[in-house]
Amino acid sequence: MEERYAELRRRLGEIEDLRQTSELLFWDQTVMMPPGGASVRAEQLATLERLSHELFVRDELGSLLEELRPYEESLEYDSDEASLIRVTRRDWEKARRVPTELAAELAKLASESEEVWAHARQDSDYERFRPWLDRTLELKHRYIACFEPYDDPYDPLLDDYEPGLRTPEVREVFDTLKEALLPLIAEVGSDEDDEFMRGPFPEARQHELSLQIIERLGYTPESFRLDRTVHPFAASSATQDIRLTTRYSEQDLTSLFTAMHECGHGIYEHGVSPTLERTPLCHGVSAALHESQSRLWENVVGRSRPFWSWFYPQVREAFPEVLGDVELDRFHAAVNRVRPSFIRVDADEATYSLHVILRFELEQELLFGSLTTADLPEAWNARFKEYLGLDVPDDRLGVLQDVHWSGGSFGYFPTYALGNVIGLQIWERLQRDLTDLDDQFARGEFGALHEWLREHVYRHGRKFTPQELLERVVGGGIDAEPYVRYLREKFGALATA
Amino acid sequence: MEERYAELRRRLGEIEDLRQTSELLFWDQTVMMPPGGASVRAEQLATLERLSHELFVRDELGSLLEELRPYEESLEYDSDEASLIRVTRRDWEKARRVPTELAAELAKLASESEEVWAHARQDSDYERFRPWLDRTLELKHRYIACFEPYDDPYDPLLDDYEPGLRTPEVREVFDTLKEALLPLIAEVGSDEDDEFMRGPFPEARQHELSLQIIERLGYTPESFRLDRTVHPFAASSATQDIRLTTRYSEQDLTSLFTAMHECGHGIYEHGVSPTLERTPLCHGVSAALHESQSRLWENVVGRSRPFWSWFYPQVREAFPEVLGDVELDRFHAAVNRVRPSFIRVDADEATYSLHVILRFELEQELLFGSLTTADLPEAWNARFKEYLGLDVPDDRLGVLQDVHWSGGSFGYFPTYALGNVIGLQIWERLQRDLTDLDDQFARGEFGALHEWLREHVYRHGRKFTPQELLERVVGGGIDAEPYVRYLREKFGALATA
Repeated sequence: MEERYAELRRRLGEIEDLRQTSELLFWDQTVMMPPGGASVRAEQLATLERLSHELFVRDELGSLLEELRPYEESLEYDSDEASLIRVTRRDWEKARRVPTELAAELAKLASESEEVWAHARQDSDYERFRPWLDRTLELKHRYIACFEPYDDPYDPLLDDYEPGLRTPEVREVFDTLKEALLPLIAEVGSDEDDEFMRGPFPEARQHELSLQIIERLGYTPESFRLDRTVHPFAASSATQDIRLTTRYSEQDLTSLFTAMHECGHGIYEHGVSPTLERTPLCHGVSAALHESQSRLWENVVGRSRPFWSWFYPQVREAFPEVLGDVELDRFHAAVNRVRPSFIRVDADEATYSLHVILRFELEQELLFGSLTTADLPEAWNARFKEYLGLDVPDDRLGVLQDVHWSGGSFGYFPTYALGNVIGLQIWERLQRDLTDLDDQFARGEFGALHEWLREHVYRHGRKFTPQELLERVVGGGIDAEPYVRYLREKFGALATA
Repeated sequence: MEERYAELRRRLGEIEDLRQTSELLFWDQTVMMPPGGASVRAEQLATLERLSHELFVRDELGSLLEELRPYEESLEYDSDEASLIRVTRRDWEKARRVPTELAAELAKLASESEEVWAHARQDSDYERFRPWLDRTLELKHRYIACFEPYDDPYDPLLDDYEPGLRTPEVREVFDTLKEALLPLIAEVGSDEDDEFMRGPFPEARQHELSLQIIERLGYTPESFRLDRTVHPFAASSATQDIRLTTRYSEQDLTSLFTAMHECGHGIYEHGVSPTLERTPLCHGVSAALHESQSRLWENVVGRSRPFWSWFYPQVREAFPEVLGDVELDRFHAAVNRVRPSFIRVDADEATYSLHVILRFELEQELLFGSLTTADLPEAWNARFKEYLGLDVPDDRLGVLQDVHWSGGSFGYFPTYALGNVIGLQIWERLQRDLTDLDDQFARGEFGALHEWLREHVYRHGRKFTPQELLERVVGGGIDAEPYVRYLREKFGALATA
């Protein structure tokens, strides 16, 4: 049996090498590649996707997993071995439903389409991008059809990012959020114009400050990089090779929060147990769990009063001409200003989820309703006005702002808001064990928090389902209440401060 | 038949995607990767090597090539189609001799060993690297054994870089070179200490100047990058995605020549006909032909009087404190100084080939003679004293200076000196067509030369063997005389100037 298990590891190691290579190629394409390389790169990504898919869906792998069933049952549920067999079997059964050619077509289209999107966004030229979106929707329908029967056609898309989660559960959480957020924003929303937040903040200093922060959060030059890109993301080529990306604008300090956000993703991948390296388990378990970490570090930690009591003096020193007269409290209030704005990734904590709910609704209407790509910008702008009260001036600030649809990542957006929700569930739980975090943050110490999260969340990788993991950590399922409570307390206190 | 040919292109496209991906992973490992990623990267490279080898040596590919024989014979010898079938058949027959596992082991070892070498070189710690060299030699013996019978055990190694070339031919060329070079160096060698050549030359300005030059030579941001590394090289992930690497030292201007050298490699790959993209023919034909281009641009163009009459004013302006008092003639003499030195890549044109001949001899003694890795540094230093008259102070400046042995690239070194030889054969030939190159260079114009080389050399990629290509271009085989003539004329003139 040990021999059969070693054979499983060997096969999965090879497949994981191809997948990690794809991720590196994607990173390279986005961050490093000269534009002339785009068309061949799309072919390379399609080839890697096709080969890894082919290797994974082979009958022999299915037989091997069957042979290993008694071995799996003889081991602890939590063991690396039982978990690898169990999770791989579930992945295999799912992957068998998708024809190799379709998987490769999706990968190739995503790569080409993202290139088109990047230019279209720059020029705010939605029509240039629209044919690619149409083609993506067409392929996605073929993809969804692979999973018939389903209760809701959106379920298979959701399942790609949040295994086991169903569409009605998301609607329920989002209904709770909408109900709580619209009045909260009406109450604490502000027109306050913090002129000092518009800089100028020279980019090189922002880069230095970003590194200073994330080096406290767990970033090391030994295992991480930080580069610039258009749409920030984190990628990993191994648990010891994590690529964070960010962007800088002289007119704001968003980059500091972007760095913490991407670092949150990075330290999750980095914290997976080394015993799971080169297996399908060596990643964060789901998009929402991942986002729970990035947004916990970005917001719950990174916009807290104790954090800024430690770090603000350094920021002030870096930009004395802009911030010389600005006291800590004013700065802290400014980075927590609730004010509807156009760009999701720059949104404050209170309005953020509304950006997501809008996309969740529109992508379902595009896929299954009567909304056409021709009418999408108009629908976007109308919904935006309804939820956030603003008139979208152009598609660059509207429908073209996110990369996801160009990459075919339908079903991804809801996980961002679910991440907020889960992050606060974990945060409430960990405060029972870690009682002096405020004091630690005020000293620039984040090691105890990092260690707790590594122990309870990161090291498990994909061993457990998101539901199992949440049950282990907080003793229950998804619950919007801690997040709503957090927002009400935080912004209530700031409003009366 | 067209369908069978399309099937061949499809299969070869997939294989070429994996190979180009490997090259990108190698570039990334060397230029971008955090050090923590090394061990997983070695696995990834081994997997890609194993898969591309497996896909290439399949019986079906052999049958397909057989089926296509009548199609090949019905087409022009020069056509893309006939060439692809012909060259692939030769590659296939060669690759079938190497077991997939051995190919993967060699790739994995190379990746790990290069990491060790990079650190060993930094610390001048040969003993740390020696076990890896032993293991590499062991695998190379197994590799050579795959090609029995052979006339000379070095032939199979040579054939990897210079298909069809035999060891005695190299010895003959090298004997001619040794005979000509030793007296030439004795005659024109100089102790002149050009103090102004030791800088300081701030690195950022060197980077700008490097780009200014290579943008005239054919580099475009659309299709190229230029990054820093320890041991400069050029890599390609597609003909429109060329990665050049270089290094800077404040104490010299070597970087300008390195940039031209790597750009020469880059524009060769970039100039391959787009119709050959994603086939095994979309590369330079051999290491010596490649080197003929890099060294032609670096030396024949880049150390010429007309080149510097164009570019020296800009260099002088960049470093006024160091070069303000130095006239063009003095500078031109300094960049052509013949003076034995330790590092091959920094060697002048006259001594360069001796560095190579030394390695050519030592690697044969290591592989097939009585020289052990324990005695290698001593043997290196003794031979160095004999050929170049210098005492090697440490292994960093001696046996550890080159990456090639760590990567298992035995048989590669001779191609560097053969590149000089072939480069001058091509140079003599092209001057019959291009009669006013000196005037063009003096105006900073290199387009006509680039175009001639693209038309006669680059665009063919690997369609012809090195011998066929040389025959097409210069009407004969390898001949050391043009190179010896060039050196005698150039350095004779400089010595009497």
